[in-house]
Amino acid sequence: MASLIVVTGFEPFGGERINPSWEVARALDGEIIEGLAVKAIRAPVNCVKTAAHVTDAIERFRPRAFLGLGQAGGRAAISLERVAINLFQDRNGGQLDTRGDARTLIDGAPDAYFARLPLAAVLKALRRHRIPATISLSAGAYACNAAMYAALHALRRRPAVPAGFIHLPYDAAQAARRPASPSMSLEMMERAVRLAIAVISGAAGETGRPRRRRLI
Amino acid sequence: MASLIVVTGFEPFGGERINPSWEVARALDGEIIEGLAVKAIRAPVNCVKTAAHVTDAIERFRPRAFLGLGQAGGRAAISLERVAINLFQDRNGGQLDTRGDARTLIDGAPDAYFARLPLAAVLKALRRHRIPATISLSAGAYACNAAMYAALHALRRRPAVPAGFIHLPYDAAQAARRPASPSMSLEMMERAVRLAIAVISGAAGETGRPRRRRLI
Amino acid sequence: MASLIVVTGFEPFGGERINPSWEVARALDGEIIEGLAVKAIRAPVNCVKTAAHVTDAIERFRPRAFLGLGQAGGRAAISLERVAINLFQDRNGGQLDTRGDARTLIDGAPDAYFARLPLAAVLKALRRHRIPATISLSAGAYACNAAMYAALHALRRRPAVPAGFIHLPYDAAQAARRPASPSMSLEMMERAVRLAIAVISGAAGETGRPRRRRLI
Amino acid sequence: MASLIVVTGFEPFGGERINPSWEVARALDGEIIEGLAVKAIRAPVNCVKTAAHVTDAIERFRPRAFLGLGQAGGRAAISLERVAINLFQDRNGGQLDTRGDARTLIDGAPDAYFARLPLAAVLKALRRHRIPATISLSAGAYACNAAMYAALHALRRRPAVPAGFIHLPYDAAQAARRPASPSMSLEMMERAVRLAIAVISGAAGETGRPRRRRLI
Repeated sequence: MASLIVVTGFEPFGGERINPSWEVARALDGEIIEGLAVKAIRAPVNCVKTAAHVTDAIERFRPRAFLGLGQAGGRAAISLERVAINLFQDRNGGQLDTRGDARTLIDGAPDAYFARLPLAAVLKALRRHRIPATISLSAGAYACNAAMYAALHALRRRPAVPAGFIHLPYDAAQAARRPASPSMSLEMMERAVRLAIAVISGAAGETGRPRRRRLI
Repeated sequence: MASLIVVTGFEPFGGERINPSWEVARALDGEIIEGLAVKAIRAPVNCVKTAAHVTDAIERFRPRAFLGLGQAGGRAAISLERVAINLFQDRNGGQLDTRGDARTLIDGAPDAYFARLPLAAVLKALRRHRIPATISLSAGAYACNAAMYAALHALRRRPAVPAGFIHLPYDAAQAARRPASPSMSLEMMERAVRLAIAVISGAAGETGRPRRRRLI
Repeated sequence: MASLIVVTGFEPFGGERINPSWEVARALDGEIIEGLAVKAIRAPVNCVKTAAHVTDAIERFRPRAFLGLGQAGGRAAISLERVAINLFQDRNGGQLDTRGDARTLIDGAPDAYFARLPLAAVLKALRRHRIPATISLSAGAYACNAAMYAALHALRRRPAVPAGFIHLPYDAAQAARRPASPSMSLEMMERAVRLAIAVISGAAGETGRPRRRRLI
Repeated sequence: MASLIVVTGFEPFGGERINPSWEVARALDGEIIEGLAVKAIRAPVNCVKTAAHVTDAIERFRPRAFLGLGQAGGRAAISLERVAINLFQDRNGGQLDTRGDARTLIDGAPDAYFARLPLAAVLKALRRHRIPATISLSAGAYACNAAMYAALHALRRRPAVPAGFIHLPYDAAQAARRPASPSMSLEMMERAVRLAIAVISGAAGETGRPRRRRLI
């Protein structure tokens, strides 16, 4: 039997009819990619509930890998997230609340966790397939970050389990209503996530963390 | 025999291997869309030569419609151009020269021509098919604008011939090298131009100009 | 007695408390710059009324020069507008209506007029004083464009009268409520417009139009 | 005698003649702001050297507070940085190297440190004075982040010492050479940093960390 990779996507929010992260997750549900069977989970756009969903899924399925997906409206490329932070910044009418007030997600837990994915290898694979992709240094301070942080926290004592998060652009159909926003076809996003899972599978056991070399 | 629509695209420039405008034009070459047979023409990225190419093609083929295509790197949506101006602003290292020096394209000709396409109808068709699209008020001051201006000038005494210009985003493969840039799949751009031609065909004989109503 | 330059600014709109174009115009009102006495006019943000205001002011004051000012929220630099178009595109909730419907401002008038200002010389002066500035190829399709078009139309038979339009960024105080938007200090915008008027004064009698040289 | 606040700025880089972070730091050098005497330090744009500079300055001056300043070309507002990460991502021709390769700054140290500044209070003060400002969730992965991380690491056992980092936009004179880039006057940036230091002084002893409340 194939090992599992839990892939989470979010429900639509902000008046959208779809969320590309869930469209991609459910399209891959049940597929076996380089020995990893995809188990798609749909998460609510709410920090507390998302974190609970993610934590429960990890406890229940004991996956060999975890990959969270989310929608990053306004970004043009597939974003491989580098870091999740122990912070929740309120939203104010859909916008990030920039009044600066913030709360910790988990008291006493570290300020941040780096993704445990082979980001450079995933990036290389996506570019080789001519898919716009980049490394991102911030997954925000809302539900996507909460999902990523909760997963890395839940897996903190299982360092061999690759875990991380990928942000997806708007789907073209979403961008049709806001033509100044960049977008990507769902088909290309599906291919991108499939490629990422293939690389993650091959790299299982590697840490994916920044190369250790004392710089300072 | 079907009537002709001349569709121009540009050769690659700026170190690119492809230019989506030419990829789309040549993909449609020979196709018959709602009674219009596509004649694709490849134009050089040079104001003087482009204008000559466009003018020659119009004289030679006497098309029932004209549609210029060009690459607008950095734009996220299909841009339906509203106006071509009688102006050429030099380039300086690939960037628009903002020193402000400018020359007329054709002495004694009007400062500008509006597109003669049913822009609102094309826009509506693209959005109904969930393709990001918008009306643009500037086609720049370089080869794309020169092609559009030259065509509208050449056709100034044949007002029943629809003529205009559409700017295309980077293709995804181009954006893979610059992941902050928005892009669109070639397949979607092809569909968009096919839809535009279908609408243009249906509207032949209409002027496509701004609705006449004295505002001021 | 000094000759007049009419300088128009707009009332605040879109929920703003100020409009930098009017702040600058009224700050300069009555000043004499290189022999040109500034007559500031406050215009309403409405195409029809603005055009009437501008036309009336030109008829009434018979100025030796005309300079319209407007707010271009989201732009980072002083924008010297190159062209005004005979077009009005409706607004939809503050945003440019991209449904594509459009009306002519003045039936039977040309599609566009080029600015009659020495744009390259103004740009050079601003940059020499380290003020971010650029040439813009579109003044939009709303009240700013209407003011510019109406002025150039009213002065079409007085070609020696310099006339044009400058778009200003948000003032810093406006941007404080939307920190992703670029802005400029009112003091710098005032200096910029003063410099522009000085150059315009020196160049009176020149046409400021694109250099005539047959390109095509 | 007043307590010290070490304020670091960077030397110019990327062909610039100035770096607003150093212009502001040196302008404030020696000033006493709400009881804190500013000690300005000029740091090199190099991760290893910057970190050494910052660490040395903290050891040598034992300041009561630390504030790093840096240039964030392309941002429109004063950015109050929330988090510094234990990561260095190489640069490639001035651009962030997006090949994804990365190294830890300090082996065995935490993945990230949150700023220890009263960010919400600083933000509120800046906005009250109508200065565009925002909270930023990423200080990048280069010298600015290294300075911030090194300071928070050096002060990890002195939690009562406020420490953090502020990114500044381009100065207007820098933006004059790239008019699409947002900018801010040096005078406003100076005022902003002065206000920030005043708030930091008043809040000394507070942690400035995210409010502790178990969310998940």
